[in-house]
Amino acid sequence: MFPKNAWYVACTPAEIADKPLGRQICGEKIVFFRGPDGKVAALEDFCPHRGARLSLGKVCDDGSLMCGYHGLRVGCDGKTVSMPGQRVQGFPRTRTFPVVERYGFIWVWTGDDKLADPAKIHHLEWAQNPEWAYGGGLYHINCNYRLMIDNLMDLTHEAYVHTTSIGQNEIDEAPVTTKLEGDIVTTSRFMENVMPPPFWRANLRGNNLADDVPVDRWQISRFTPPCHVMIEVGVAHAGKGGYHADAKDKVYSIVVDFCTPETETSMWYFWGMARNFNPKDEALTAAIRDGQAKVFAEDLAVLEAQQENIAQYPERRLLMLNIDAGGVQSRRILDRLIAQEADR
Amino acid sequence: MFPKNAWYVACTPAEIADKPLGRQICGEKIVFFRGPDGKVAALEDFCPHRGARLSLGKVCDDGSLMCGYHGLRVGCDGKTVSMPGQRVQGFPRTRTFPVVERYGFIWVWTGDDKLADPAKIHHLEWAQNPEWAYGGGLYHINCNYRLMIDNLMDLTHEAYVHTTSIGQNEIDEAPVTTKLEGDIVTTSRFMENVMPPPFWRANLRGNNLADDVPVDRWQISRFTPPCHVMIEVGVAHAGKGGYHADAKDKVYSIVVDFCTPETETSMWYFWGMARNFNPKDEALTAAIRDGQAKVFAEDLAVLEAQQENIAQYPERRLLMLNIDAGGVQSRRILDRLIAQEADR
Amino acid sequence: MFPKNAWYVACTPAEIADKPLGRQICGEKIVFFRGPDGKVAALEDFCPHRGARLSLGKVCDDGSLMCGYHGLRVGCDGKTVSMPGQRVQGFPRTRTFPVVERYGFIWVWTGDDKLADPAKIHHLEWAQNPEWAYGGGLYHINCNYRLMIDNLMDLTHEAYVHTTSIGQNEIDEAPVTTKLEGDIVTTSRFMENVMPPPFWRANLRGNNLADDVPVDRWQISRFTPPCHVMIEVGVAHAGKGGYHADAKDKVYSIVVDFCTPETETSMWYFWGMARNFNPKDEALTAAIRDGQAKVFAEDLAVLEAQQENIAQYPERRLLMLNIDAGGVQSRRILDRLIAQEADR
Repeated sequence: MFPKNAWYVACTPAEIADKPLGRQICGEKIVFFRGPDGKVAALEDFCPHRGARLSLGKVCDDGSLMCGYHGLRVGCDGKTVSMPGQRVQGFPRTRTFPVVERYGFIWVWTGDDKLADPAKIHHLEWAQNPEWAYGGGLYHINCNYRLMIDNLMDLTHEAYVHTTSIGQNEIDEAPVTTKLEGDIVTTSRFMENVMPPPFWRANLRGNNLADDVPVDRWQISRFTPPCHVMIEVGVAHAGKGGYHADAKDKVYSIVVDFCTPETETSMWYFWGMARNFNPKDEALTAAIRDGQAKVFAEDLAVLEAQQENIAQYPERRLLMLNIDAGGVQSRRILDRLIAQEADR
Repeated sequence: MFPKNAWYVACTPAEIADKPLGRQICGEKIVFFRGPDGKVAALEDFCPHRGARLSLGKVCDDGSLMCGYHGLRVGCDGKTVSMPGQRVQGFPRTRTFPVVERYGFIWVWTGDDKLADPAKIHHLEWAQNPEWAYGGGLYHINCNYRLMIDNLMDLTHEAYVHTTSIGQNEIDEAPVTTKLEGDIVTTSRFMENVMPPPFWRANLRGNNLADDVPVDRWQISRFTPPCHVMIEVGVAHAGKGGYHADAKDKVYSIVVDFCTPETETSMWYFWGMARNFNPKDEALTAAIRDGQAKVFAEDLAVLEAQQENIAQYPERRLLMLNIDAGGVQSRRILDRLIAQEADR
Repeated sequence: MFPKNAWYVACTPAEIADKPLGRQICGEKIVFFRGPDGKVAALEDFCPHRGARLSLGKVCDDGSLMCGYHGLRVGCDGKTVSMPGQRVQGFPRTRTFPVVERYGFIWVWTGDDKLADPAKIHHLEWAQNPEWAYGGGLYHINCNYRLMIDNLMDLTHEAYVHTTSIGQNEIDEAPVTTKLEGDIVTTSRFMENVMPPPFWRANLRGNNLADDVPVDRWQISRFTPPCHVMIEVGVAHAGKGGYHADAKDKVYSIVVDFCTPETETSMWYFWGMARNFNPKDEALTAAIRDGQAKVFAEDLAVLEAQQENIAQYPERRLLMLNIDAGGVQSRRILDRLIAQEADR
């Protein structure tokens, strides 16, 4: 179950640079491509002629998408533009999906078109600010997207899953606080005067700061529906004000997570990191992305095994501890949104 | 759904040259082998003793098939011949399938034995004529066999799927005609004064004809139930009479397609080409076969994606255009034959 | 269907030497590990916190098993020992499985704990006797465990499946005798004055005996529930008393087979051989194990194909010949045990 009336990250511009991309989002098979003037378009990936996959075709010079089977061309509005030797006025319209390119991502709306207001797309401040840099990647994971939201709203797991990079014992000794404001769930943890783990030592060096001194460290996870988790993370040299320290005394980033459902038991995980130090240093961007790729691959094995376990014992009640409050609150918001859609 | 009372191409002699072959045809698991005097036999691939797969066994000197598990031997008539230390008179008979070797193929009948008249096997004129040569291959495809029949009865797709070999723009500009005569569906297309595409240029050279001049080109697809599509194809130097031109002015072939069902969602695709020019030139036969293998592999990806799409949206109505008439008429014949069998 | 109130071989000590092992036995997902003082423990492989797989975690210094997701620690008794920042008294207990390390194997009981009497573990005389040596391995096979029991209780198949190692024509010429004593089924076959096949020639040499002379050969398969088949096998120089010959005139071994169910259609096959000649010769142990590995891999293909066949034709009645008596009697015992458990 997932809200349909919501903007989901579907793909990146690089994925549709050369040819159409077929991808299933929230159970819908969709083809993404650039139509006239390079504007992004999203259609059901199903040719109205004989059901071929439109994503196996190609984009024509006029921006229509030509089916690779018999040459039917469909426009961004879902109308069949032409087909050799055919009158196409009566052809059934192909379903279109509202789609917007913004912040370096392609966003799609899988529910009721009339409700698709681009103003509701999750705002990403850093994406339009030259003082910030972003790097990221994409994983396909065989688990329900809520398991990943649980994961990201409870960073206690870093101490166990990510022992060689971002994990450290102090994580689960620090208290965690969860707040609900409207449809935003925030879970925060602050650690004072701890030694930075390897990933953060590298980032301190990346900002020309000493990496062998105690730091104050913070993690502030923010869930917004349907499946976005932005995590403010960073370390400041101890005693300089922590989260509020001067830019010169800290390294501060936002971990970016879009947990887009593919089906009930699989998801697309768009992960990345935005940072506001040394934004022009592309080698640093690449190094951070490579580090994150390794860290998030560790979650993948855990989550796929958890999905299998839950599928085998579906009746089993799970615990809801204080550390799980972030995930639990997030699921409640999702449950409410899904119920509201069912009521319409 | 497929007609059961019909002769299907099951395999080639080469496939049973050294050992038995297990293959599922129309949902029936069958073992094919050469019995006494090399005569081909077909039995259910299920040992009456403990259900082992007979095709894992071997053919004995007396032409019986010995199970590779406990040595039970079964004859071509399905009777157990012997088993070490056992009296086998009371053993249940193994189901036999009518089977005939003809025209370079092994044909099997999966329905009611009493109706299996070898005279009903599809006649292949060229197969017994020394002025013709044949080369071909076999693909396993994860799609319903009707999708392949649609494909072959509408060659418009050549312009889109096979762009570098047999496709050319003029294909979908030429009108197509579909005729129904008894249980035979014929779809024809004639192109006049066009430049030959790469596959046909190679064939013109193969018949010592100029390949850089305009030609008249024809495609005549003939469906006969249950799943055979023979396509007369060729080109003649323009203005020499086209399809009816003298043999010295044209290259003329028959594309041979047997779309044998394996299950509801998979099939065996026996493809090949028979030609009546330079029949002794084995290098030419091999070159044509290699070219066809590449062309038909392009269909495979399209059809498997189409099958997945149709399975995900089973209620969706597909279009039936004039170009689809060949496939639509063929399906009607199949539907009628299947309904007749259900009535018995 | 399998008896739950029974001791099954689950794994070997080597498999849990370094880390926990997750394995499904009789449909139960279980994690095996060494707890305090190295004592083996077995828990349901499901963390009570969020359902993560405990087998992805690690064993702590105090012998508790720590979940690799959020650090919950569970003891061998299934009680949660601790979790960072949590009071764990009210946590639900994790299911424990009775488990015993004995004879070089880890044995597990998947049924009612109260009935789990270690005295009922199948006794392996040779395992504790320094005059014997043992070598073996493990295969995962996609078939119901009863098909393997059938296989082992009817060694006629050696003449067909294992033609190059232990098979010989005389096997299916020799009469077979099946006896039922309590819950033990014994099937015996004796061959007199036959030439030894390759596997036995190698063993004769391994015991410094001539390998090019006729021998008396025996096979005595013993099934004990739930799934153990021990086979006394050997050859003696002909005329020296056969099975009862002096140790110096024969080679005598016990083929060890535990056919532990994983699911209804898959099993763990623990196979090996215990011998009482040259027990200190480790190279001989390795050579025998390598030979067995090849022989038992031949069964694997046959059994997986048989399983597929039976699944496709589930209503088909199989034959029950005299050679099948061992398997048939074994299945009757299993049926009775399973019915008794259902009655409780």
